[in-house]
Amino acid sequence: MTHSAAQSTTEGPLGSAAEVKRHKWWGWGLDDVAFRWDNKPAFAPFAIDKIGLDLPGSTPEPEPTLEGFEVPASRLPEDVRAALSGVVGTENVVLDDELRVVHSFGRSVTDLFRVRTGDFSRIVDGVVYPGTEDEVREVLRLVLEHDLVLIPYGGGSCISGSVTPDVSEQRPILTLNLGRMRRVLSIDDTAGLARVDAGVYGPDLEEQLNAEGWTLGHFPDSFTYSTLGGWAATRSSGMQSDKYGDIADIVRGLRLVHPRGVLALTALPGQSDGPSLREMVIGSEGRLGVITEVTVQVHRLAPVRQVIAYMYPDWEHGIRGMHAIARSTEVSPTFTRLSDGPETTFSLAMVKAPSSTKGKIAATAQDALFAYLRRKGWDTENDMCISYVCFEGSQESVARQERIVKSLVKHNGGITLGSGPGAIYDQKKFDTPYLRDFLLGYDVFGDVSDTATPWSRLNEMHTSAVDAAHAALAELERPGFVFCHMSHSYHSGACLYFTFAFPYSAKEQALSEYQHVKNAIQQAFIDHGGTLSHHHAVGTEHQPWIEQDVTPVGVSILQDLFSTSDPARNLNPGKIVSP
Amino acid sequence: MTHSAAQSTTEGPLGSAAEVKRHKWWGWGLDDVAFRWDNKPAFAPFAIDKIGLDLPGSTPEPEPTLEGFEVPASRLPEDVRAALSGVVGTENVVLDDELRVVHSFGRSVTDLFRVRTGDFSRIVDGVVYPGTEDEVREVLRLVLEHDLVLIPYGGGSCISGSVTPDVSEQRPILTLNLGRMRRVLSIDDTAGLARVDAGVYGPDLEEQLNAEGWTLGHFPDSFTYSTLGGWAATRSSGMQSDKYGDIADIVRGLRLVHPRGVLALTALPGQSDGPSLREMVIGSEGRLGVITEVTVQVHRLAPVRQVIAYMYPDWEHGIRGMHAIARSTEVSPTFTRLSDGPETTFSLAMVKAPSSTKGKIAATAQDALFAYLRRKGWDTENDMCISYVCFEGSQESVARQERIVKSLVKHNGGITLGSGPGAIYDQKKFDTPYLRDFLLGYDVFGDVSDTATPWSRLNEMHTSAVDAAHAALAELERPGFVFCHMSHSYHSGACLYFTFAFPYSAKEQALSEYQHVKNAIQQAFIDHGGTLSHHHAVGTEHQPWIEQDVTPVGVSILQDLFSTSDPARNLNPGKIVSP
Repeated sequence: MTHSAAQSTTEGPLGSAAEVKRHKWWGWGLDDVAFRWDNKPAFAPFAIDKIGLDLPGSTPEPEPTLEGFEVPASRLPEDVRAALSGVVGTENVVLDDELRVVHSFGRSVTDLFRVRTGDFSRIVDGVVYPGTEDEVREVLRLVLEHDLVLIPYGGGSCISGSVTPDVSEQRPILTLNLGRMRRVLSIDDTAGLARVDAGVYGPDLEEQLNAEGWTLGHFPDSFTYSTLGGWAATRSSGMQSDKYGDIADIVRGLRLVHPRGVLALTALPGQSDGPSLREMVIGSEGRLGVITEVTVQVHRLAPVRQVIAYMYPDWEHGIRGMHAIARSTEVSPTFTRLSDGPETTFSLAMVKAPSSTKGKIAATAQDALFAYLRRKGWDTENDMCISYVCFEGSQESVARQERIVKSLVKHNGGITLGSGPGAIYDQKKFDTPYLRDFLLGYDVFGDVSDTATPWSRLNEMHTSAVDAAHAALAELERPGFVFCHMSHSYHSGACLYFTFAFPYSAKEQALSEYQHVKNAIQQAFIDHGGTLSHHHAVGTEHQPWIEQDVTPVGVSILQDLFSTSDPARNLNPGKIVSP
Repeated sequence: MTHSAAQSTTEGPLGSAAEVKRHKWWGWGLDDVAFRWDNKPAFAPFAIDKIGLDLPGSTPEPEPTLEGFEVPASRLPEDVRAALSGVVGTENVVLDDELRVVHSFGRSVTDLFRVRTGDFSRIVDGVVYPGTEDEVREVLRLVLEHDLVLIPYGGGSCISGSVTPDVSEQRPILTLNLGRMRRVLSIDDTAGLARVDAGVYGPDLEEQLNAEGWTLGHFPDSFTYSTLGGWAATRSSGMQSDKYGDIADIVRGLRLVHPRGVLALTALPGQSDGPSLREMVIGSEGRLGVITEVTVQVHRLAPVRQVIAYMYPDWEHGIRGMHAIARSTEVSPTFTRLSDGPETTFSLAMVKAPSSTKGKIAATAQDALFAYLRRKGWDTENDMCISYVCFEGSQESVARQERIVKSLVKHNGGITLGSGPGAIYDQKKFDTPYLRDFLLGYDVFGDVSDTATPWSRLNEMHTSAVDAAHAALAELERPGFVFCHMSHSYHSGACLYFTFAFPYSAKEQALSEYQHVKNAIQQAFIDHGGTLSHHHAVGTEHQPWIEQDVTPVGVSILQDLFSTSDPARNLNPGKIVSP
């Protein structure tokens, strides 16, 4: 421990732009991966019951083809392209139509709908893939010199419009894809700190860290298609934040290429040196510059990891149980999660048909359990809430915590299901984003909105946001389904994560119908003591609520922060606050 | 837990300015409390050995008298005084000489020396005591209208110059003392959140919270003479930060009276809404406005609290032990502290002569223990390091953690002393500041400098800063004593807190000699991967290192933040960064 820090430096060659991982052009993730309903017996009945979608009787839209759409030509002047090529190499300045489309959208429902319908009136004019911080500095210098717009880009998974260009922007727009900068540069084994290129994707980062016995412990739902720099720039939080912290806790130091030079913040465990520059860069969505390197705290891989499932008769009992776990000074779970009744029903509808004998036995056991719970007076169809809690540590510590939590759950009216369903939850957690593309194929919107609020207001927030969504759907005269889970537990409160789905009436008014429902939920967040988002950033899609969230004075301070750093608005203009 | 939050509102009458607690005009704390050496048998031999101070043969300077000094008249125009009186009441606008002197200085060694020597060339022109946020707004309006300078003031305990006016300031200067705003406004029992007036002193706040079964858990050394608003404005950290967090973790929401209105940040457990405005206000030292209200997370008083003392043969073994405790996922101490050899010697010199039989037995037992350790090969005079670890929780949890830590300590070469010395440490922790005034009475400077750095650099930092201080003393040809403790443990590093003492050669060059030693330590912090201060803010005294700490780009961002909020520099100008 007192030996000098191990410095395991990876100095492999950088890949070219062509090797950088990316989404399919029209949706989430890999080309050959899609959500399937035919292996989930309860899904089709669920869909027709909740949103009137008759899956067996419907044919989804075919996958879109880019050939059918008009992609505007790049506006990048030839001399600028040549200058950029001189900095990063010709193969790393890409003007290709498909890549420009991919980089012009995040993966919000609005983005996905626009891509599917070929709404390409204004897309980025080129994608630049730098390989080093010096190249980023040089690219930024060219951007300022030629009055271009620069949009830093990680994995393109954001759902708040943070990487989408303003359609009224007249200047040439470049996206800066950091994907070639993806190395763990060094690990300080004594401090538990890793210095990492900002462009590394989640799985690649974990693999590099795991190889040295470390983990970051940061697993947002977007994990497979998001990057370290993107997490920092959007103030991300992973599902294991109870133990590992939000990205703002994880990031100890960073390097930002700013219009005036490099802001280099040393990795420190704590400091008293004025307003936190680190906390200004975190969440800045590219408006202050480009994050090129991040120093993160890393943890030794836990010897034992166990996810246990629990069931409560209803939401109120469940929240009481979650609160008791959060208040206990005797346990420190890795994550805690509670689905409300409708989300529990949805989870059950997502279960695959058992193929093995073991699976069939488990399904039978579940039927018996539910029958027993109904005899006890539980409403297993509507109110019952499933919960997952993850424990990590030594065998003894995990066992001790499991015992304590089991007792807290019981004390609050719940029952322990065990590790079987927990393991299933743990495996399928990154598959959900594919569902939205699937639903869009049937003219159905499926989306999420999240907030955080104190423990004292979680029930009020849950009821209010669900009611607001249902009222908005009723105003549209559309069927729809709304559900929620609580996760990301803190001392003073937690995150509530809402999912809603409804079939839009017609393509022409689809987005305005979507906005109507989304707005109702977001406004409920603000009206009931919550924030506009717990971990999905502001971008443009959450911007209508920033003034209510941080007051007009707060907005003016943010405007000043951005306008003094970037007076000509070359850096991702219009995101977070206008102008 | 699901009942609506208890709102225990205190609506007592506000006191007047005369009732607000304050320091003695020339030093720390109460008039009738002072450090005594005559009841500490080892202190006088220690003083002559380490800094050549012959206490029995010396007579301290008499306490200074204000009558002997020239106090400049207030420059506050009569019409402005009248307007301020109209806002807060005549009795709450104070132009009295002694109070203006008290409010013109913090309690740094530089401040204390200036006060003792009557260096009052420029002091504040008046002290205003607002009773409400509306009054603060109205005072700020008058400040801007009349182009005055406003210095927000909590307990005046700061040691970095944050409340001291610039001697070259020509405009009238007001100090805004928040001491009348000292109520716990409400406690949300479910969320564990308390909404509190910013002007409340530490003991008053704990008393109000304890009465409802809660604690803030924030105990900086300055606790008795510092306020919640001051802690937030200077990015403070208390000795129990291992468990309760730094003030930046504790503060969940706040209200700031800013030149453009009130910045109101809702108390939230987590959020993703752009750069953190909360983290911009924390540490802003009055340059963005006046913090009037803070919402803090509070904790239930622990049923059991135990402080255990340990001893290690030397610093390296001690740091290994502390690191092992920090890395263990099985324990979560409330605080962890390790004194180096010289600080351990100093602590032993601070022990009072035993007056009880029990005390005499303990002293004999200690002598026997040290003799045993010497036989084992320990250097009990120079190298041996005392450590304290505090545990809180249920009886079972405290006992379990004690067992684990005992074993970690043993594994790293240390021994467990038990709870006796721990209890003594816990009781006397707030007495240390009085020592500096005592030493100044003998023309001796005693001061502290703190930093934080990763675990991998703690030993290097310890050696380098101690060596730098000794080298600086050698250059001055002064005897001197330097010691250090590690505290405030985090995942990736910890705080190192250095104390140094030396007799200056003559009053005329006292401050330049002080600067020479202080500078050497501060520069070592920066040169070895540390920050300019872990929890003592920037003010003016640490400002020479801010550019090295956050790079020139960081300084320019801070300058922009302040200049756009306060273009005419009315709010505590010159603090943190210039202009």
